[in-house]
Amino acid sequence: MPDRKLRLGMVGGGQGAFIGAVHRIAARLDDRFELVAGALSSDPQRAQASADEAGIARSYTDWREMARAEAARDDGIDAVAIVTPNHLHAPVATAFLEAGIHVVCDKPLAISLAEGEALARLAREKNRLFALTHTYSGYPMVRHARELIERGELGEIRVVQIEYAQDWLAEPVEASGTNKQAGWRTDPSLAGPAGCLGDIGTHAYHLAAFVTGMKPQTLAAELHTFVPGRRIDDHVQAMLRYANGARGMLWASQVASGAENALRLRVYGTKAGIAFDQENPNELWFTPLGGSAQRLMRGRVNSAIAAHATRVPPGHPEGYLEAFAQLYKDAALQIEALDEGRALPPESRLLTTVDDGVDGLRFIDAVLASSAADGQWQEIANA
Amino acid sequence: MPDRKLRLGMVGGGQGAFIGAVHRIAARLDDRFELVAGALSSDPQRAQASADEAGIARSYTDWREMARAEAARDDGIDAVAIVTPNHLHAPVATAFLEAGIHVVCDKPLAISLAEGEALARLAREKNRLFALTHTYSGYPMVRHARELIERGELGEIRVVQIEYAQDWLAEPVEASGTNKQAGWRTDPSLAGPAGCLGDIGTHAYHLAAFVTGMKPQTLAAELHTFVPGRRIDDHVQAMLRYANGARGMLWASQVASGAENALRLRVYGTKAGIAFDQENPNELWFTPLGGSAQRLMRGRVNSAIAAHATRVPPGHPEGYLEAFAQLYKDAALQIEALDEGRALPPESRLLTTVDDGVDGLRFIDAVLASSAADGQWQEIANA
Amino acid sequence: MPDRKLRLGMVGGGQGAFIGAVHRIAARLDDRFELVAGALSSDPQRAQASADEAGIARSYTDWREMARAEAARDDGIDAVAIVTPNHLHAPVATAFLEAGIHVVCDKPLAISLAEGEALARLAREKNRLFALTHTYSGYPMVRHARELIERGELGEIRVVQIEYAQDWLAEPVEASGTNKQAGWRTDPSLAGPAGCLGDIGTHAYHLAAFVTGMKPQTLAAELHTFVPGRRIDDHVQAMLRYANGARGMLWASQVASGAENALRLRVYGTKAGIAFDQENPNELWFTPLGGSAQRLMRGRVNSAIAAHATRVPPGHPEGYLEAFAQLYKDAALQIEALDEGRALPPESRLLTTVDDGVDGLRFIDAVLASSAADGQWQEIANA
Amino acid sequence: MPDRKLRLGMVGGGQGAFIGAVHRIAARLDDRFELVAGALSSDPQRAQASADEAGIARSYTDWREMARAEAARDDGIDAVAIVTPNHLHAPVATAFLEAGIHVVCDKPLAISLAEGEALARLAREKNRLFALTHTYSGYPMVRHARELIERGELGEIRVVQIEYAQDWLAEPVEASGTNKQAGWRTDPSLAGPAGCLGDIGTHAYHLAAFVTGMKPQTLAAELHTFVPGRRIDDHVQAMLRYANGARGMLWASQVASGAENALRLRVYGTKAGIAFDQENPNELWFTPLGGSAQRLMRGRVNSAIAAHATRVPPGHPEGYLEAFAQLYKDAALQIEALDEGRALPPESRLLTTVDDGVDGLRFIDAVLASSAADGQWQEIANA
Repeated sequence: MPDRKLRLGMVGGGQGAFIGAVHRIAARLDDRFELVAGALSSDPQRAQASADEAGIARSYTDWREMARAEAARDDGIDAVAIVTPNHLHAPVATAFLEAGIHVVCDKPLAISLAEGEALARLAREKNRLFALTHTYSGYPMVRHARELIERGELGEIRVVQIEYAQDWLAEPVEASGTNKQAGWRTDPSLAGPAGCLGDIGTHAYHLAAFVTGMKPQTLAAELHTFVPGRRIDDHVQAMLRYANGARGMLWASQVASGAENALRLRVYGTKAGIAFDQENPNELWFTPLGGSAQRLMRGRVNSAIAAHATRVPPGHPEGYLEAFAQLYKDAALQIEALDEGRALPPESRLLTTVDDGVDGLRFIDAVLASSAADGQWQEIANA
Repeated sequence: MPDRKLRLGMVGGGQGAFIGAVHRIAARLDDRFELVAGALSSDPQRAQASADEAGIARSYTDWREMARAEAARDDGIDAVAIVTPNHLHAPVATAFLEAGIHVVCDKPLAISLAEGEALARLAREKNRLFALTHTYSGYPMVRHARELIERGELGEIRVVQIEYAQDWLAEPVEASGTNKQAGWRTDPSLAGPAGCLGDIGTHAYHLAAFVTGMKPQTLAAELHTFVPGRRIDDHVQAMLRYANGARGMLWASQVASGAENALRLRVYGTKAGIAFDQENPNELWFTPLGGSAQRLMRGRVNSAIAAHATRVPPGHPEGYLEAFAQLYKDAALQIEALDEGRALPPESRLLTTVDDGVDGLRFIDAVLASSAADGQWQEIANA
Repeated sequence: MPDRKLRLGMVGGGQGAFIGAVHRIAARLDDRFELVAGALSSDPQRAQASADEAGIARSYTDWREMARAEAARDDGIDAVAIVTPNHLHAPVATAFLEAGIHVVCDKPLAISLAEGEALARLAREKNRLFALTHTYSGYPMVRHARELIERGELGEIRVVQIEYAQDWLAEPVEASGTNKQAGWRTDPSLAGPAGCLGDIGTHAYHLAAFVTGMKPQTLAAELHTFVPGRRIDDHVQAMLRYANGARGMLWASQVASGAENALRLRVYGTKAGIAFDQENPNELWFTPLGGSAQRLMRGRVNSAIAAHATRVPPGHPEGYLEAFAQLYKDAALQIEALDEGRALPPESRLLTTVDDGVDGLRFIDAVLASSAADGQWQEIANA
Repeated sequence: MPDRKLRLGMVGGGQGAFIGAVHRIAARLDDRFELVAGALSSDPQRAQASADEAGIARSYTDWREMARAEAARDDGIDAVAIVTPNHLHAPVATAFLEAGIHVVCDKPLAISLAEGEALARLAREKNRLFALTHTYSGYPMVRHARELIERGELGEIRVVQIEYAQDWLAEPVEASGTNKQAGWRTDPSLAGPAGCLGDIGTHAYHLAAFVTGMKPQTLAAELHTFVPGRRIDDHVQAMLRYANGARGMLWASQVASGAENALRLRVYGTKAGIAFDQENPNELWFTPLGGSAQRLMRGRVNSAIAAHATRVPPGHPEGYLEAFAQLYKDAALQIEALDEGRALPPESRLLTTVDDGVDGLRFIDAVLASSAADGQWQEIANA
């Protein structure tokens, strides 16, 4: 264990926000961070009230000022968590990176590929960590799935089916003006040009890539907006082709009545298939060609990679927060190593970073293009 | 109940075949048919041995001869079941229709749209029944799903996700020469040009149409052959657009390692979503927008349409054979009505017929065309 | 295949009955029986109408007369199916056995142990088959479970948990006078002294014994009647002890609100555990000690015993009727062997017979005694 | 929010322990406690090393000394978490209560009823909180289940089926001397006289009581030890009777091969039934009499009581740690109220306390007695 906890700051996440609180719990869960500074709102009163409620010592109104001031202190923050609407990710992250402060940023990374690439460049120049919270990669069984594929237990991958269905935007809830989450997520000036696609399609995409270790080469896609008056997509469907000949489909929808948060991945190889459902994250289904399905459980698989992401005994279901905390744990390991000039610890290597964010933006661009071209196949500009 | 059972003949289904035996059980289950004649094989000895084994009184070697002879007898067959490989469906059916005999035919209807349309025409001219066995539409909960949508309980349909995954062709099993099923199903001269697409893709397609009451207007699709040396597709993926703006995806694969017979349909409307899985046919999941999922069970829903297709008490799972028998029951009702010049009984109206087969061929054509055009959107020529 | 189908008669099962129709379908499914005679009701008019509806050639009003007349005919019935209320099982079976006719009888065998023992004796003396339809033993995966245990794959059995829950008697439905099933099943003069216990408790008990190959030595039990005014038990709970030290619990209830037909068995040995749920009969769960659960599927297990009980291809769910038909198939094999003086075919050996019925009555007696003695441990008088 | 976090101490939970770490995470999760003192081991070196690892400022070797010293400090601990083996619960808790310090204690409360009653008395005299961590009552859907029953949505309760199955003691793992958990839990001098019964049987019992609001009046039970050489029970089965006539069964086993942590509760009333499975804690199944099952999800039920125990958005599965943290949150609310002389906040009322522990011991005593008496019915001495 390190001598002291890392000092964490937060931008965004004031009263009424949702993901800020989740970040705070996740940061605390493994006791590696203490939250000491924040610019939780641009409204001074609300910023102070939110900071008080979260037990944050130093409250700022302006995140630029926060970056400057924290960098100047001997006991300034080591890292900042960015939990603002999407359009602020890039400017905020830039300010803190320029100030030499590590960044943990909510997804999607930014609202344009140019912004994202600039961030990646800057992080590299400054030699600072830039963690991006694709939470679902923190689940032990997601990591185990990835390991099974790496080990070749599925054989050559042939088919990837990925989907993420929700129903919370099936009606024009943003029209009321009172649903803050729906408001900014359907407003292109705050969310960027991708609605459902940016919000959950990127999660689906990342999960498939994370588990298979493969990124699709080309895709055919279609965005759709079902809810009248909505200014952004609420539905996306796509077909995928991979370099090795594999095929795939991606579906994401925020109007799928009855679906809560149905992120599901199925991968089929020449030897076996697997299935993961985020709503039952302690299970991973593994079925050999022609054989019987096995329900692999977090506590039952003999997997170092799963064990590293596990805190609770077998049979007790792992939760979402723990998955989230896993990213912070990996981030802490990497920050400490970076600060001390050591190699990144191998066990932290699955942390999602700015490069995943860039991949996501490339994916978004290709989807937008294909959709605009009536579903024509588009290259995804993977590096 | 009618005074006598209908007399049934069968073409195909000799020793070593699979679907013939299923037809025979299904025909028998509700006691409306007796099987009295057959041309079970073109090999005379094998035809006779197969007929003996099936307890069939009159065995023929040549189905043309069978049609002539049975039509000439006072106690000749009322109907013929056609369970040959696909390429014989049309010539056999034509011969029996010309002889004035009703037809029950396995799917797909034929190996070309022209053939199929000619059959439809002929059946109409002759005023004979032409039943096509899309078995899955015989499940009580499939019929109940259709009824829920008809009643408007899902609201306006927005999204249709349909898939049919198997793994039995994940390896080149046809190369051995001993797997008769794999042999003809992967041989374009016997199966026609559509492999996975014709064999199970049409089932998936029909099921979606049967339940939603909607046929897609356009689609974007891609066929693929994963197994080296295979002469026909073993994988199909497609995106769908419907007249009312609905979107959909269709996936069928015979190389999805671990999948047995995973035919699954999900439909989402403005008010609710449903899900059906053929491997658990007694269940239908219904989830209102924002609400809790309900597991509707065959014996528990107060549905005349489901009751009509049900033989066993609640809690006892309905089986595949019963679903199959349902089509024969509906066919019997319609044959009797046709023979007596009565209107078709309303309770038999869901029987799948030659028109469904034509729809399937139109679908096949559109898929072939879109795939050949690198996934371009194609009209489906629905009447 | 035999030269001719067996001729079957039926006693009981007239209009309004439930299990008679199930027997008729099951008898027909594998094409080994033809139903030619019946005494479906003691009311002459109703008997005739029921026979006409079922397509039965020879209708009797009096089953004694039927036994005499059929025995005297050259083309008389080979076997009789008895589907009356419980109190008639013994007298009817006796009459037909005395006439030299094989018997297929619905469970429970009789309403007293003495009756049952007499039947067993008589069947032995007359050398006639006496099949008892414990339907659930006909499921392929139940038979596979039994085989796994026989092969030692569970190790030494330690724990048996068996339960059968329904809710159809949660209210006093028998009081209306219109629910024929509820009427006789809650009337001790027709059902015998055991209500829920005889109706479904015996099924649960038989299933546990069938699968484990072990009968409990002693038990502690309690019957209860929840519904005011009911004259018979509607709930039973029991603890079991086995000769090898194993322990078990049995629960059966007809007042478990929400339960349809929830017959479930779990068996735990030193090496692995299994679970079977009648409502999902195509699955058998197998979990090794400390390992991952495997969902064994009917079509995927390489099991001759399961294959013998299977008619449909993998992935297509097996139904209740097929399970029922399996017993008839086994019975046909045994009847033919008996008539020809051959040894019973090995593949038919799992047919449930009069001896299972006797076991069930011994079980009933022990439960009644233990319950009357405030739950004291009672021996079950197994031979 | 309060001005400061509560100061927490811990006794037990040194390196190699399991539940201590879980408590520390749970205490941290909602940011209401800071862990400042500990007597984590009686070995001085190990105590210091464990404290350093956990980031605990003040490390003690002797918990008596710790109680004295902390009570004397201005900034001494507000509460102590007791996570020792069972036999130390009572002496440690006594020392801290005598020192005026609140107690959070792992279950079971103590190893004898007398000890437990003395603790309850002492806590009352001293007016200190004594929380007992029956973790499972912290799940949102468990609390919702309780609320459904309180509201009368199940009608009058008739049947309670509760079980808790594990397999980790199916072999004599304690014999190795290296499995610390198995060692003390199977050693009567450390665990007390109840093995499986005390370890998980009490959890099962508490859960049933918590949800139904009813305690059984009498029970019939049997303990068993399957593993040769084990000095304590590893299996318990019991039948229950309730004051209102309800019946129930309880099963707990640590030798159920294949079971991880299968705590399951089913409750049936005159109007509906519910089912909860700890391994899928986000679901609660609710089925009306004769109706369709509904899968109630944490985020979808409109329940203040569930919302109070929820931190993550709908569709994201709640974890075990969150349930654990819930108890700490409730405890914090009650400690603050007690310290300030205010009434206990209503929303914290479900916290399990010393009285639940006493109930558990009464239950244990009754089981031991019934088992010793060959399963005779025994009163449970509920107050």
